Amino acid sequence: MPITMTSASLPIFRTALSNLYHCLVKASDNARRRGFDPDVFVAMRLAPDMLPFASQVRIACDAAKYGAARLGGLQAPRHEDNETTLDQLKARIASTLDWLASVPDGAIDGSEERDITFPVGRDGTTRTMKGEAYLKHWALPNVFFHVTTAYALLRHAGVDLGKADYLVGDEAP
Amino acid sequence: MPITMTSASLPIFRTALSNLYHCLVKASDNARRRGFDPDVFVAMRLAPDMLPFASQVRIACDAAKYGAARLGGLQAPRHEDNETTLDQLKARIASTLDWLASVPDGAIDGSEERDITFPVGRDGTTRTMKGEAYLKHWALPNVFFHVTTAYALLRHAGVDLGKADYLVGDEAP
Repeated sequence: MPITMTSASLPIFRTALSNLYHCLVKASDNARRRGFDPDVFVAMRLAPDMLPFASQVRIACDAAKYGAARLGGLQAPRHEDNETTLDQLKARIASTLDWLASVPDGAIDGSEERDITFPVGRDGTTRTMKGEAYLKHWALPNVFFHVTTAYALLRHAGVDLGKADYLVGDEAP
Repeated sequence: MPITMTSASLPIFRTALSNLYHCLVKASDNARRRGFDPDVFVAMRLAPDMLPFASQVRIACDAAKYGAARLGGLQAPRHEDNETTLDQLKARIASTLDWLASVPDGAIDGSEERDITFPVGRDGTTRTMKGEAYLKHWALPNVFFHVTTAYALLRHAGVDLGKADYLVGDEAP
């Protein structure tokens, strides 16, 4: 089977978010073992002018959700961005994964040349890219950026994660 | 044009590494402005049990280099992993980009079902995946993981980078 826009997007989004979920589970376990509230992670930042952990998780989810929705011409569900606990962030990931699983077969196929217009920044500015470029140079890099930043923040905070947790999630040794 | 194994790999590798190069240039400028030796970054780590900045850059380069080489059945050039300065790390990225530009047209196309066998860890263990899965669930996540970790380390160290530097490099506002 040749690679397609669907096969080059949905499985990557799903794996990245499933493995992020797995990292959050390990972060909770780690906090309990070390004797502090796991929800402390939610507001932590790698630098004072970086977004906190909660935002990294939310944006990873949204990059996948809106990536699939825009490529497929679908309406994505809204999320309120009001999570304050690790359990709520896990539910956010789970809800995004559920929605990704509902994307109809074939909705994204053939979107290589489709014009995708999306907001950049918060001032109403938009950008338009062709579907294939949007997937490769916007949606995928954004998903990986925020998943990896969330991972890096947990690692910096002493959580016992390794790259296998990011790459293969529950299958990590 | 439908998406292909070539179009889903080489341009993403090139963009990720070019933008990483751009981040290293900004890191040098930032260090000079703040009055310290830019090469201090080379040995920095986000956590004591994480690989240093130099390794993040090297592995990002190698993930792209070996990703393309394995998918295309090509011999990748060896690098010595002996960089001790930011300029040497920039040269490592540039050399990897040069090699990626030399990959013959079509070498990677049709590699969806090709068996790709590669080392995991340092004890000689190997893993085999089909080409498409290898690209999507190994090569790409590895490239983005190490590029983003390098970025996160610089941000944590106070370098004035934003996500646009990672996404669009020199085109960042």
